[in-house]
Amino acid sequence: MRGGIDLGGTKIQAVVVDARHRIRGQARLPTPRDGGPPAVASRMAEALRAAGENAQLRPGTLSAVGVGSPGEIEPGGIVGQARNLPDWDGSFALGPTLSREVGAPVVVGNDVQVATAAEFKLGAGKPYRSILGVFWGTGVGGGLVLDGHDWTGRGAAAEIGHVCIKVDGARCTCGRKGCMEAYAGRASMEARARRLAAKGDKTRLFEIAEKRGRDRLTAGIWWRAAQHGDQMALDLLDRAVEALGAGVASACNVIDPEAVVIGGGLGVRFGEEYVRRIEHAMMPHLFTSDRPPAIHPASLGDLGGALGASLLAAQADGRGRRRAPAA
Amino acid sequence: MRGGIDLGGTKIQAVVVDARHRIRGQARLPTPRDGGPPAVASRMAEALRAAGENAQLRPGTLSAVGVGSPGEIEPGGIVGQARNLPDWDGSFALGPTLSREVGAPVVVGNDVQVATAAEFKLGAGKPYRSILGVFWGTGVGGGLVLDGHDWTGRGAAAEIGHVCIKVDGARCTCGRKGCMEAYAGRASMEARARRLAAKGDKTRLFEIAEKRGRDRLTAGIWWRAAQHGDQMALDLLDRAVEALGAGVASACNVIDPEAVVIGGGLGVRFGEEYVRRIEHAMMPHLFTSDRPPAIHPASLGDLGGALGASLLAAQADGRGRRRAPAA
Repeated sequence: MRGGIDLGGTKIQAVVVDARHRIRGQARLPTPRDGGPPAVASRMAEALRAAGENAQLRPGTLSAVGVGSPGEIEPGGIVGQARNLPDWDGSFALGPTLSREVGAPVVVGNDVQVATAAEFKLGAGKPYRSILGVFWGTGVGGGLVLDGHDWTGRGAAAEIGHVCIKVDGARCTCGRKGCMEAYAGRASMEARARRLAAKGDKTRLFEIAEKRGRDRLTAGIWWRAAQHGDQMALDLLDRAVEALGAGVASACNVIDPEAVVIGGGLGVRFGEEYVRRIEHAMMPHLFTSDRPPAIHPASLGDLGGALGASLLAAQADGRGRRRAPAA
Repeated sequence: MRGGIDLGGTKIQAVVVDARHRIRGQARLPTPRDGGPPAVASRMAEALRAAGENAQLRPGTLSAVGVGSPGEIEPGGIVGQARNLPDWDGSFALGPTLSREVGAPVVVGNDVQVATAAEFKLGAGKPYRSILGVFWGTGVGGGLVLDGHDWTGRGAAAEIGHVCIKVDGARCTCGRKGCMEAYAGRASMEARARRLAAKGDKTRLFEIAEKRGRDRLTAGIWWRAAQHGDQMALDLLDRAVEALGAGVASACNVIDPEAVVIGGGLGVRFGEEYVRRIEHAMMPHLFTSDRPPAIHPASLGDLGGALGASLLAAQADGRGRRRAPAA
């Protein structure tokens, strides 16, 4: 049995899987807002324990645990600059800390990369040898599997959210200008909706958020507003789709993958229809528009990140084994 | 001894190299304007014979020949849609045709990919495991070596000239809008210079071209005009550098290579100074601006393409050999 934990800005999702990657137990807890990285590590251990109980597992029986984390992942399970997480500006030894708490080896990887690896091995990317994972959520993250192997470059590959689609364009939350994420990321979409509403433009977005007791515009709120035909929501979604078309096509022009798998909070919520709209928006920018890559919605949904993290654990687990020499 | 041929829109460069990749002979001939693909294949054989004579080689002693070609390279040495070449709209069996003419096996690869592989193995990319080759010339081509291996995707990877840097931007020669090449490719720069001159803007670009008996603005003409302080040339070069900054940085955000090597007609001519300017222009768009990839001018110059082609030949040559089984 192995554990997998997807560490997000608002929630921590833990799974316990068997050797065949089947989920045997799971639990979800909110990411703590106070206490910084140590509190986050404790909550992660708690989520994993809950997933283990859900799987009716005796404590201490996990052979290894994988973590998908935002931020910069440094060797040894150190996580730096995870700005999505509360009070996580410096570096923190997440892997070693968590390992002590759970009593098993811990491997830490990039959240969107492990989610891409999960789609590659277990999800929509299974038929292919090379895929680009696109995670359309608060930001726009990406992951790459090339010829069956993760490609992470020097640790920051597939930062497709920061592909420049408009020189001197909109200001991104990262400070740069014209990034795809500045148009398509949920955070940027929300900021723009607030500016437009402050100017007096009409929208039901914030009314829906209030009804749901939310202080931010979640994917579900965008979805509901779009269902209601809210013009501002539809316009901002159109703008996001347009930006995703240009940015994802540009990434494909660099990589030429066999397939693109689109997930993330908004990607999962808006599903097939929007995946087709993004595909359509890619065509004017795609070098291989006469033979485009296959474009699929992610098939593992919300659990892709945690499942991908558990695949990392499988790697760690396998590292100690000797391979039989090839014939 | 192996042969390498770089097939360009205006010239055919052939080299003969020894087993240690040293150039023993070379020859350059103009690409024929008439006669279509068969005439091109004959001229390529002629260039290779001339290179062989230059190396004082007996005819028929080449073990294999590699070709770097524009267009789409299909299996079996078929080249399609090489629009830079005269009357080459359909597919042509370049490899087999040339093989009959030169009496040696011929392997055909993409021109910028083989040039990238040459820089990786023999040139500015030698210290690295992963590089992005940028060929700034008539268009803007790219090549990728990742973890020591060529990455060509489904055959169209590293088409960085068609990364979209401005949604709804300038029209590219490929028909798309906002491609990096629409701002930075020599062909696009020339088209814009002609439009500006037709409107009455002053420039010495066309005067220099006339003096040199050229009907197009070669890299050398841009260089000379820039040396003379020609404002239009300088402005268009600035615009190209700006576009290269955004587009190459975007490609780096996807790949995160250890190094970028900048060659091509304009890249080689403008050299170190402009490579630094491109590096500077990348910074506002680069995700890893705090630890950028190394940026180098190509070090093999004009011969990179032919040398890279000869490396392909070495591969072909090695294919027939049995490897000793690993211990």
